[in-house]
Amino acid sequence: MKRIGRFQAGTKVFYGKVEDGRVYPVTGDVFGGGRFSSRSHAESDLKVLPPVVPGKVLAVGLNYLDHILEMRLERPREPLFWFKAPSSLLPHGGTIHIAHPSHRTDYEAELAVVIGRPLLNATIEEAQEGIWGYTAAQDISDRTIQKSESQWGRCKSFDTFTPLGPYVVTGLNAESRRLQLYQNGKLMQDSSTGQMLFGPAELVRFISQNLTLLPGDVILTGTPSGVGPIRPGDRLEVRIEGLEPLVNSVR
Amino acid sequence: MKRIGRFQAGTKVFYGKVEDGRVYPVTGDVFGGGRFSSRSHAESDLKVLPPVVPGKVLAVGLNYLDHILEMRLERPREPLFWFKAPSSLLPHGGTIHIAHPSHRTDYEAELAVVIGRPLLNATIEEAQEGIWGYTAAQDISDRTIQKSESQWGRCKSFDTFTPLGPYVVTGLNAESRRLQLYQNGKLMQDSSTGQMLFGPAELVRFISQNLTLLPGDVILTGTPSGVGPIRPGDRLEVRIEGLEPLVNSVR
Repeated sequence: MKRIGRFQAGTKVFYGKVEDGRVYPVTGDVFGGGRFSSRSHAESDLKVLPPVVPGKVLAVGLNYLDHILEMRLERPREPLFWFKAPSSLLPHGGTIHIAHPSHRTDYEAELAVVIGRPLLNATIEEAQEGIWGYTAAQDISDRTIQKSESQWGRCKSFDTFTPLGPYVVTGLNAESRRLQLYQNGKLMQDSSTGQMLFGPAELVRFISQNLTLLPGDVILTGTPSGVGPIRPGDRLEVRIEGLEPLVNSVR
Repeated sequence: MKRIGRFQAGTKVFYGKVEDGRVYPVTGDVFGGGRFSSRSHAESDLKVLPPVVPGKVLAVGLNYLDHILEMRLERPREPLFWFKAPSSLLPHGGTIHIAHPSHRTDYEAELAVVIGRPLLNATIEEAQEGIWGYTAAQDISDRTIQKSESQWGRCKSFDTFTPLGPYVVTGLNAESRRLQLYQNGKLMQDSSTGQMLFGPAELVRFISQNLTLLPGDVILTGTPSGVGPIRPGDRLEVRIEGLEPLVNSVR
């Protein structure tokens, strides 16, 4: 199990392995065969970036039964996915900008899957092996726009609407992990990844039957019940058992 | 006015300016300040790739009134856009693979806008200046899936479902250009970009009010009426006045 992040020092951007507050830069392919430098940085000296640069960011909807009931929508027979703009990514510690202050804009805590190898028509075993790791995410949603138009890409793709991080944890078994969202210290979402209708490997398998997944691609696996509006000044914290907390503020 | 493509020779991939059957490789930033080599390749010696590597591919729906009527949908008050997977791109000359032979899968000829500079909250003038160029595209659509689920990302993002190219033409005035699709030599779509509800600069302005557009991002601007099913063995040709034809086969 490793914790891999992406960092900036001055103008230099690099992947690094995080251990005990030290960051060991990766040389070579971070998704396989990369080596870790023996010369490390203090993590506190570095700027934390989103942990990967995805070619695509997929969002899965209606993947927790309690959230389907809360949104008064129908349970899908197969996974429902769409795409978010990679330009919406926000690192741990970054500030979410509410795009339209007069609209209702919600938090949504999610487990994110990061792909490690090309996958097309994967079996469930290949899907499992193709998962590089997991990280925490939010799928911030402008509900006013979401209710006014049929497609969900725009309302969830404003800049800063996809907090992701802080690190990717590889080798984690993500089944039955507690998933929580705290808003200003108050517990607002509290579920388990075991409550997903379609688990991570099943999602990866299904998506790979539709298109080629590539290393670095990110899949947001859906949010449980308890979604609610964010407000300027909020402190939002996604806690997923086995991962570091993802903390963001709101403006 | 320049014609810029992306090419492969052996393992080497590069942008190049196309003139009279010769390709002059670009060094530096292709979107600005890049220089053209004086040593050229015969275009026939090179493999043609999709002309850009977009960070995101946006699709605009219901942007021609006749297509809205044909699909029995409502005219949107503002542009409706969503995202396609960049992994669905197919170069000029490539073969479209019908994902589900039992489904109805349609051609859709479209004008594609390629962005040349970062744009956020652009004015109409900034939007116009931020357009790097235009190329031809198709937004191949699995209608069976499109009718069975609410989101349009999946049904349009199977591998090979976004033919794009062959080149980006810079400095073109794309207003009132004839846009046609030929299926096996028969004219199936015949309209003009002047029939768009929202023209290219207006689309770019609107999208940039929602998210940051980046150099290389591609916007498919919608299709006119006349869409219809594709079949194995088809030869599909998108002709847009001022651009080179985009030709693809179907398997």
